[in-house]
Amino acid sequence: MSASATPETATSDADGKPLLATLLHQGVYRIVMQRPEKMNALSREMMSALSAELTKAAEDPDVRVVVLGAEGKVFCAGHDLKELTAARAEADGGKATYEAIMRQCSDLMQQIVRLPKPVIAVVTGVATAAGCQLVASCDLAMAVDTATFCTPGVNIGLFCSTPMVALSRNVAPKQAMEMLLTGESIDASTAKDFGLINRIVPRDYLDQVVQKYAEAIASKSAHTLKIGKEAFYRQLEMPLSDAYDFAAQTMVDNMMANDAQEGINAFLQKRKPEWTDD
Amino acid sequence: MSASATPETATSDADGKPLLATLLHQGVYRIVMQRPEKMNALSREMMSALSAELTKAAEDPDVRVVVLGAEGKVFCAGHDLKELTAARAEADGGKATYEAIMRQCSDLMQQIVRLPKPVIAVVTGVATAAGCQLVASCDLAMAVDTATFCTPGVNIGLFCSTPMVALSRNVAPKQAMEMLLTGESIDASTAKDFGLINRIVPRDYLDQVVQKYAEAIASKSAHTLKIGKEAFYRQLEMPLSDAYDFAAQTMVDNMMANDAQEGINAFLQKRKPEWTDD
Amino acid sequence: MSASATPETATSDADGKPLLATLLHQGVYRIVMQRPEKMNALSREMMSALSAELTKAAEDPDVRVVVLGAEGKVFCAGHDLKELTAARAEADGGKATYEAIMRQCSDLMQQIVRLPKPVIAVVTGVATAAGCQLVASCDLAMAVDTATFCTPGVNIGLFCSTPMVALSRNVAPKQAMEMLLTGESIDASTAKDFGLINRIVPRDYLDQVVQKYAEAIASKSAHTLKIGKEAFYRQLEMPLSDAYDFAAQTMVDNMMANDAQEGINAFLQKRKPEWTDD
Repeated sequence: MSASATPETATSDADGKPLLATLLHQGVYRIVMQRPEKMNALSREMMSALSAELTKAAEDPDVRVVVLGAEGKVFCAGHDLKELTAARAEADGGKATYEAIMRQCSDLMQQIVRLPKPVIAVVTGVATAAGCQLVASCDLAMAVDTATFCTPGVNIGLFCSTPMVALSRNVAPKQAMEMLLTGESIDASTAKDFGLINRIVPRDYLDQVVQKYAEAIASKSAHTLKIGKEAFYRQLEMPLSDAYDFAAQTMVDNMMANDAQEGINAFLQKRKPEWTDD
Repeated sequence: MSASATPETATSDADGKPLLATLLHQGVYRIVMQRPEKMNALSREMMSALSAELTKAAEDPDVRVVVLGAEGKVFCAGHDLKELTAARAEADGGKATYEAIMRQCSDLMQQIVRLPKPVIAVVTGVATAAGCQLVASCDLAMAVDTATFCTPGVNIGLFCSTPMVALSRNVAPKQAMEMLLTGESIDASTAKDFGLINRIVPRDYLDQVVQKYAEAIASKSAHTLKIGKEAFYRQLEMPLSDAYDFAAQTMVDNMMANDAQEGINAFLQKRKPEWTDD
Repeated sequence: MSASATPETATSDADGKPLLATLLHQGVYRIVMQRPEKMNALSREMMSALSAELTKAAEDPDVRVVVLGAEGKVFCAGHDLKELTAARAEADGGKATYEAIMRQCSDLMQQIVRLPKPVIAVVTGVATAAGCQLVASCDLAMAVDTATFCTPGVNIGLFCSTPMVALSRNVAPKQAMEMLLTGESIDASTAKDFGLINRIVPRDYLDQVVQKYAEAIASKSAHTLKIGKEAFYRQLEMPLSDAYDFAAQTMVDNMMANDAQEGINAFLQKRKPEWTDD
């Protein structure tokens, strides 16, 4: 990391050890889950910490792009099974707790989709269940060649129903079904073929490649990235003619913004643009 | 086949020869079309026989997974053209018959999608028109490397409109369009790249691989497979936020079922689960 | 080209140089953008010319298939940035003009989708922004191995929002997002993997291969191609059961048309069909 980097620590657990490490450098905000001994499971605490960091990232004008990574051999193992099991002792058998956890998890995934800044997953290990969903929910994803992906809930009688929402919007139905029904892992190369990740990067060069890739996106107009990402997910759910009506209006609004004027002028004048919109 | 296998015969045609052979072994119910001399065409009789077997499979608690295969070089040649042509002689030029046939065929395909148990197509030859649709309609598909797939209706003036419903929900639009507009065949390798099939298996090991693959799925909780498969197709047609609301509720219900409790406990206790839900 | 070819010229610009060259041969109507010095940009004039030719192609019974190509190293560079910039001087800062241009462009793309005849893009160079959208909007696409594709609007502060409507209906979300957020080009091989194009053809054989491919489609029943193409895009936007109801009715209507009767008879009699429906 360069000297200008700003290392920080995030929400801590009971022991005072931070759940997340964060670092802002050149507009790229890295959020790193650091509970390798708990396989970076999405406990309620971890989900709250991630959500808080995403909110912070959304609001901070210095953050242009978010990169989501993890420490250790497991990128994220999904829900915390011990937390789920503990709730069985509650009067209602855990139902209210499960509703709260599933709501929190679905909100977190949709927060990524709705975040006005691109979010890139960087997968350096095993991504299972809601951990695989986390990758699927990001706008872009990179992985090392040893990363693996699976939705193994079916093996423990708990079908990966919420992970499948994100997964089935990333990969073809039979590919998603195979992962969901067999619970077997796919490797990074298969994940790339399926469209679940964008790029495979050698681990030795990972930090460097990710930073360069993210900085390239961070150098674009924040305003343009924001309206583009938002429009992408909205138009995806519309019939073709509605999607065109909506996107055409988005283009017109975009043309009327300062950054498009500056960007087009800079292009025609063969100089670098200077963005001013938020 | 093992000694514990239960060979049966299914609906017979006028000659008394069974249209389908079936076999239940270790929770895997194999249904094999055996009209190779008629290219396993989806005559009304064949569709009725298939539908009856699927209903039986749905109801029989010993059936955990359905495997759909065929005898001979043609997996299934689609509708029976002689049957279609014979109806021309009817007073209305065949219209009522065609309506009944198309309704029956669409119902059969949707019966597969709605079946509360996974259905795996095993393609050992040519799958054309409604035969290709049959593959596309299954949850999973395996094929030998010499299998081919096409929607050649355009060559005989009868666009593969119903097959395209299933095909275009499996492969990318331009890939589907090329098959539909040119009527040309794709090989197994291309079908795998397109997402139309999951795996290519050498013919010599086919029975063994299919059985092992299907048994792995059959060993999961039947209840979990059922709610998972149903939820998969339902959420696919919803906008993202509705899909999450629905899937989160499905997860909660799943958590409250015995099999999830047993599965999670077994996992945490490092033992094999014993499923009890249907 | 054969002696029976009918070379024509289309709408001209101020200098009298035709914007488009067209050629009808064996049912294949080639439309070639020939403004290489302007990178075949979609100026209002170019869009009008393309739309007029498409209308002509739709109405002319001798046209069975449309092939859309371009002269020069750039297939199409998208909107004409100088035209867009010039409108800034208008009283409303160009807003009304941008609305008209985006409407015209969206209409053109949807005209391709709704054209009752297959449209094949032949990409011999760079396809960017609305040029990439043009490729995505065609039913089929072929490219030379040196062709490239990108949606680089984000680089000039103008997100490729309308191109993304077509792009995101051709390729997986993360693949589309990477093109849209980074603005980087993909090569022909990647475009084929993504499903954006159907085939890569060596340049030396391009004309020959394209003509043969298009003639094969042109030899089908025009009536069948028309109902099939229309049904394809309509059913894609329906839930599964509605899609089946619609497609089943389409099949029945298709069966009652002369071309299906002729086609099936010819097939059963092992002779070539003679199409009579329009």
